[in-house]
Amino acid sequence: MKAQAGHFYAVGIGPGAPDLLTLRAVDIIKSAKMIIAPRAETSDASLALSAIRPYTGIGQEIVEHIYPMKRDNEATLASWDGVAEKVCAALSAGKSVAQITLGDPLIYSTSAYLLECLSGRLEPGRIHVVPGISAFQASAARLNKLLCLQEDRMLIMPGTHVRLVEQSLSKCETLVLFKAGKNLGAIREMLKKRGLLEQASAAFYVEQEGEAIWRSMAEEFDHAGKYMTIVIIRTGRRTW
Amino acid sequence: MKAQAGHFYAVGIGPGAPDLLTLRAVDIIKSAKMIIAPRAETSDASLALSAIRPYTGIGQEIVEHIYPMKRDNEATLASWDGVAEKVCAALSAGKSVAQITLGDPLIYSTSAYLLECLSGRLEPGRIHVVPGISAFQASAARLNKLLCLQEDRMLIMPGTHVRLVEQSLSKCETLVLFKAGKNLGAIREMLKKRGLLEQASAAFYVEQEGEAIWRSMAEEFDHAGKYMTIVIIRTGRRTW
Repeated sequence: MKAQAGHFYAVGIGPGAPDLLTLRAVDIIKSAKMIIAPRAETSDASLALSAIRPYTGIGQEIVEHIYPMKRDNEATLASWDGVAEKVCAALSAGKSVAQITLGDPLIYSTSAYLLECLSGRLEPGRIHVVPGISAFQASAARLNKLLCLQEDRMLIMPGTHVRLVEQSLSKCETLVLFKAGKNLGAIREMLKKRGLLEQASAAFYVEQEGEAIWRSMAEEFDHAGKYMTIVIIRTGRRTW
Repeated sequence: MKAQAGHFYAVGIGPGAPDLLTLRAVDIIKSAKMIIAPRAETSDASLALSAIRPYTGIGQEIVEHIYPMKRDNEATLASWDGVAEKVCAALSAGKSVAQITLGDPLIYSTSAYLLECLSGRLEPGRIHVVPGISAFQASAARLNKLLCLQEDRMLIMPGTHVRLVEQSLSKCETLVLFKAGKNLGAIREMLKKRGLLEQASAAFYVEQEGEAIWRSMAEEFDHAGKYMTIVIIRTGRRTW
């Protein structure tokens, strides 16, 4: 599938390893005239951009968009609204545009903002989403840890509020936490009180430089300063 | 990454389209000596096998494993235990073995059974999981429907029990239902009562022959006899 003139593609590129892109993502990236790569203002380089380097070439325009790392919905949308204007101008000029994003574009991803900003300006048939391997899937794969089977429920949420995490334990058989890095100590304490440490695992920077695996949170492990964190807690099983 | 002698790979191949495999999945499939393809006893052909046809070649042994479609945990495990024995024999003979599975091996997949049966027989370092695009991701991508952002919780579960589905609506901002085909009429009635039809979408056979999209369940749509169904309900948003 090649990127078509006048069309926009939100492309999930997976957790970071270049061989965890789908063939479709590679095809779109190779053929897009303009590629937009997000970079957090706190980061030196675009992780997404380095993951796709093997697939980009001469004649492609690569635009880094540096986005704010504040938890401010309006400022974030305003920042992406400017990008949406650029995208529309490029599309009107007959270019194809791909925005790359780590993971999957529809799961805790900056793509959501650009897609929202574009939705009012572009006809739906010109907007395409290419799914990508999400960090929680790559983490589970690395841990060889079952996520769900048969009647199991899997709840995926941010690990930013420990009380909300605790309340969610009883609502599913598998609890997956994104963005749990900062709270990992408090989350571990909470899991310890509930006797769930042996069912809990964590993965850091999966499929990136510095990858680390904490197979059982019952063991000691130095997680200080580790971000890009996924926690997976198996609280039970609902078999047939 | 090539399949290594004496190693087992559970390979997710995505929803069905050959270009939604990852490059890693293609590499493993191309280099594995033996490939195990699951086929439901109610099905004429292995969907997974047809998705990987472009990548298989001469000298590869392809074994179809026909599994029972009964909701019987013990019979299912017993059926896969026989496969595990074959796998171990092949690995001992110096072969590499890949089991392919639609979607992701750790999300409602037959791989889970084989992985469980192998876990007691093989050292962990010889078992590898390659993540794949799950049907819910492909469905959301086709619908261009946000799954989760910021503080949203996403709950993924089977749609087999309508009461459980109803109880789960209040526990998340996005509810994703697998295996909702048989209950779709009842699920729609329940969503109608709760005023959620416009926030609900469904996708059938996504990235396969016969793909169909039901963008808003508030509209009329003939879903009779459609399986391979994913339902996505957005019940709210938890912004920063």
